Amino acid sequence: MDFLHFDPKDGVIPARAPVQRFLSDLESNFADRAAYRARLNENPLIYRVTSIEDYSGAGQLHYGLGVLMPGKIGREYFMTKGHLHTWRPAAEVYIGLRGRGLMVLEDERTGECRVTPLEANTVVYVPGWTAHRTVNIGEEPLVYWGIFPCEAGHDYDAIGERNFRIVVIEKDGAPLVMERSAFLRELEAQAL
Amino acid sequence: MDFLHFDPKDGVIPARAPVQRFLSDLESNFADRAAYRARLNENPLIYRVTSIEDYSGAGQLHYGLGVLMPGKIGREYFMTKGHLHTWRPAAEVYIGLRGRGLMVLEDERTGECRVTPLEANTVVYVPGWTAHRTVNIGEEPLVYWGIFPCEAGHDYDAIGERNFRIVVIEKDGAPLVMERSAFLRELEAQAL
Repeated sequence: MDFLHFDPKDGVIPARAPVQRFLSDLESNFADRAAYRARLNENPLIYRVTSIEDYSGAGQLHYGLGVLMPGKIGREYFMTKGHLHTWRPAAEVYIGLRGRGLMVLEDERTGECRVTPLEANTVVYVPGWTAHRTVNIGEEPLVYWGIFPCEAGHDYDAIGERNFRIVVIEKDGAPLVMERSAFLRELEAQAL
Repeated sequence: MDFLHFDPKDGVIPARAPVQRFLSDLESNFADRAAYRARLNENPLIYRVTSIEDYSGAGQLHYGLGVLMPGKIGREYFMTKGHLHTWRPAAEVYIGLRGRGLMVLEDERTGECRVTPLEANTVVYVPGWTAHRTVNIGEEPLVYWGIFPCEAGHDYDAIGERNFRIVVIEKDGAPLVMERSAFLRELEAQAL
């Protein structure tokens, strides 16, 4: 199959089954553990990815259509698990189709952490050796393509262990990027 | 620069200059030489490509936003030059944003030639060793992303010499795919 139709509004590709990630699949991702546990019964769908991996071998590409739902767990916006590529040099091109989000990028070699917009009609380049996670800061689903070398592979464990150094939270109705450690201190202070 | 805005309607990326291909740049592509020569004075813009090639090295990707104008030269729809990748194994993922087109694919190894739709909300996978050309069969610009391994390179000469074995022409208001040789015979018969 050399071509596929996709729906840029709901991120559906007919006859291709997505992987679905519910809140219970993202245990280590949200900093606010109390807010996380409070939503586990409901266990909302956080995102879906429909992966197209029909070819393999040198020079071939894999790609996936992601749909990240709008919402928050406590003050943290819905986010993907985030990953490094198992083959670290592998880059990824993201093309935003719908919605308003951010991409959190963390260079594994330098520790440098930054965010870029990922929204309808933007393209984001994730270079090699860079952990990346998408965050939905809008009111509608964030829909995007990601295209990467077929050898890339997904390494979720490296992220799961240490998480990203920054978090994206809501403050006064707008997204705020802050250090995870500072946010954790804020949560501790509130819990006292 | 890790992110860029693009306009999916006119295929413009602010602050990035596209390569423009006019009719005079596509001398060997249209089968109907008389129709080609008749339009050379006017020399219409056939397509533009804005290439993003900011990174290089193993695992990195290049990508480009293409805009193929609507129109015909004689009965042949506007088309791109078409290319093989210099590094033959390199694949390319095309993502259609606007318009209605076809992708002509020709496997260099087997000679197999086929067409697939490339239009708004379709994705086309071009495997390695496959010459590919886009054709606009609609009334509005055909706008699409193409993403490929940075090592791919563009080989236009192999296509220029022998062209694609099939052509896409208009017949009774609809696109018709036919063998180039048959179309050339038709043109010769008309010229007598």
